[in-house]
Amino acid sequence: MNNYASMSKEELKTLKDSLQKEYDSFKAKNLKLNMARGLPSNEQLDMEADFFNTLYPDSEFKSELGIDCRNYGQLDGISEARQLMGDMMEIPAENVIVFGNSSLNIMYDTVCRSMILGVCGSTPWCKLDKIKFLCPVPGYDRHFAITEQFGIEMINIPLNEDGPDMDMVEEYVNNDPTVKGIWCVPKYSNPSGISYSDEVVTRFAKLKPAAEDFRIFWDNAYTIHHLYDDKQDELLEIFAECQKYGNEDMVYKFCSTSKVSFPGSGIAAFGASKKNIDFVKSIITIQTIGHDKLNQLRHVRYFKDINGMKEHMKKHANILRPKFELVLNKLDSELSGLEIGTWTRPYGGYFISFNAMEGCAKKIVAYCKDAGVTLTGAGATYPYKNDPMDSNIRIAPTFPPIDELAQAIDIFVLAVKLVSVNKLLGE
Amino acid sequence: MNNYASMSKEELKTLKDSLQKEYDSFKAKNLKLNMARGLPSNEQLDMEADFFNTLYPDSEFKSELGIDCRNYGQLDGISEARQLMGDMMEIPAENVIVFGNSSLNIMYDTVCRSMILGVCGSTPWCKLDKIKFLCPVPGYDRHFAITEQFGIEMINIPLNEDGPDMDMVEEYVNNDPTVKGIWCVPKYSNPSGISYSDEVVTRFAKLKPAAEDFRIFWDNAYTIHHLYDDKQDELLEIFAECQKYGNEDMVYKFCSTSKVSFPGSGIAAFGASKKNIDFVKSIITIQTIGHDKLNQLRHVRYFKDINGMKEHMKKHANILRPKFELVLNKLDSELSGLEIGTWTRPYGGYFISFNAMEGCAKKIVAYCKDAGVTLTGAGATYPYKNDPMDSNIRIAPTFPPIDELAQAIDIFVLAVKLVSVNKLLGE
Repeated sequence: MNNYASMSKEELKTLKDSLQKEYDSFKAKNLKLNMARGLPSNEQLDMEADFFNTLYPDSEFKSELGIDCRNYGQLDGISEARQLMGDMMEIPAENVIVFGNSSLNIMYDTVCRSMILGVCGSTPWCKLDKIKFLCPVPGYDRHFAITEQFGIEMINIPLNEDGPDMDMVEEYVNNDPTVKGIWCVPKYSNPSGISYSDEVVTRFAKLKPAAEDFRIFWDNAYTIHHLYDDKQDELLEIFAECQKYGNEDMVYKFCSTSKVSFPGSGIAAFGASKKNIDFVKSIITIQTIGHDKLNQLRHVRYFKDINGMKEHMKKHANILRPKFELVLNKLDSELSGLEIGTWTRPYGGYFISFNAMEGCAKKIVAYCKDAGVTLTGAGATYPYKNDPMDSNIRIAPTFPPIDELAQAIDIFVLAVKLVSVNKLLGE
Repeated sequence: MNNYASMSKEELKTLKDSLQKEYDSFKAKNLKLNMARGLPSNEQLDMEADFFNTLYPDSEFKSELGIDCRNYGQLDGISEARQLMGDMMEIPAENVIVFGNSSLNIMYDTVCRSMILGVCGSTPWCKLDKIKFLCPVPGYDRHFAITEQFGIEMINIPLNEDGPDMDMVEEYVNNDPTVKGIWCVPKYSNPSGISYSDEVVTRFAKLKPAAEDFRIFWDNAYTIHHLYDDKQDELLEIFAECQKYGNEDMVYKFCSTSKVSFPGSGIAAFGASKKNIDFVKSIITIQTIGHDKLNQLRHVRYFKDINGMKEHMKKHANILRPKFELVLNKLDSELSGLEIGTWTRPYGGYFISFNAMEGCAKKIVAYCKDAGVTLTGAGATYPYKNDPMDSNIRIAPTFPPIDELAQAIDIFVLAVKLVSVNKLLGE
């Protein structure tokens, strides 16, 4: 196909007219399609039907250590659930606390706790004049929303194909004591789908933070969320790597079964060094008497162990893979060679990241919306919803049924073309 | 029986010898009994077997408004759960947010949020030099632990038979802008079992707080937790009462099904004015994508409505009533007339409150412990675990099977007698 930039004004005008006609006919259909959020589809949710058989009226509600999961207590979770989530996070069960249904809630509370009570005895962050978090971009909007709510200054760090720009990360972390944290989705990153290289992980582990209470927020949301059997990213395990360099207190790990069992009622977990775990437990023992242990038991009985969980993830992959391939094939066939955008080809996770020409993202999202396709808001993948290039768009292909997805992506590529032509025409 | 104080030294010594002998024989049994916490018993938990039938593999997981409870979303809970919990709290469903499994967690987060983000736009409490909470005593130890963790100064307010000393409450709240809250368990109070009179509730509703961000933390934990069909406390509904006086933003209501379905996996809720609800939602939308809606659905399907729930509570009462009566009968028969202690006779809730002679509570708890009976720590019912009279002991008769409870209370009355005799002997 022709590179748009090489076309004459006349050619572009003709192209624009035909694109506009096509766009108007889509608009006339009054569609209502959604590629905004990383929701599992109904088909995925339906797979888990047997899940509710795991706690029968006549079943035993005791954990392997004899704890009655129906009653109060067991703040850190039942041992078999700590094992399961520990295996998911690749960290020993003794370094795990199992919480409720939301890893976002754990992360929020972790930041909140640091604000008001400090980190393992450090000065509460709210008592300091200024604190900062590093934010690899594009990144996860809900991470940025947490630090924004607490008034923490966020600093953009470019996310390359092998992870964050580590020169910048080292520069900030090792020299600036007001830098207290960094948000990471290290595997099948949200939204770009890239995974951190071994070198990047090792450089993280070797950091020498200026702040004793600096922590890496390692949100391994997509750790076993592969799309392929034969093509999978491998991520070096950071906790063990940190231990090698005497930095085991520097990392907090988070994960959940939200996209394994159910988003609405999965279980989530926190993994960290004994010192961090002991501190967190000393605080949360005042916050709750314990999280939902019956749901923990349900998960362990259904998945059995990490192998059962990994096997189960293949069923999710079978549903998701065709959706990702549909989107990528369409982007390839419609946009390749036009030089009006680039996109990622992840082997897992929930998103494809699209970079439009500078200054086009907001317009593309608006054009899609007018034609009935909801995308994640342009800018959402940056702190303060401010993408300095107005370029990045997150595509979430998981939720719509495949026929709706096909329509949605048709409209998306059309919007990209139309907005790009307008830009080249200076309109 | 003889009033101990009227006995001669010789009589007391003889009595002491015989009590000590009895006590030693209990000790020799190496018992392990627990009356420390308000746990439902296994017998109560077993009643709910059918609960797990409510979400079958082939059942519909949609809420009445068509929300798929397995997926993300619905921050304030599904409408039918808001209705159920609203009916439990006697507040309209639109004024309710349904959370996870722990009302304690809601209360903790409510205080925490006020500390760091303020209340509906007020200055965050952590930015103020000093803030205070009023604490009717004896009260619930976990309430006091929350305010203690955040460094909030706690002020003892005597809890009379009809509620807190309202002269003192008015004096503090209406004049001191550093007073930001008061902890209340208004019905079948923990631990004394008393309920607030209509007059007390009305005086609460008529408060004119010096602080715009003063809130009443109304933890109605035992709202439908009666022991009798014919003898029940009635509590005036405070939200409507506050509305009458233009004070609807002044009260936060909390409740849960922890002692209705399961302590480990019930549902909990928050009830407040629209202004408060809107503010809380604007904050928690950053904290979580939503609580466990499948568990909400399970509760609504099992209990149907508030009437189903109330009917269900009669089954709990049938199990709990004999335990309370056993304890009260033993206290009556063994301690009446001795003038070495007083105790409450609640019609509901989970506790009996015992007041020993001044300076005896810690010793009684220690004697019980040495003989294998765990009680709530003496002092726990006061802020900072400091009972100035060292007198109050919380008895939790709910968890032990009735034969174990009988042994435990035998040891308790023996310990009360022994410690009291020692005190009178000046030992």
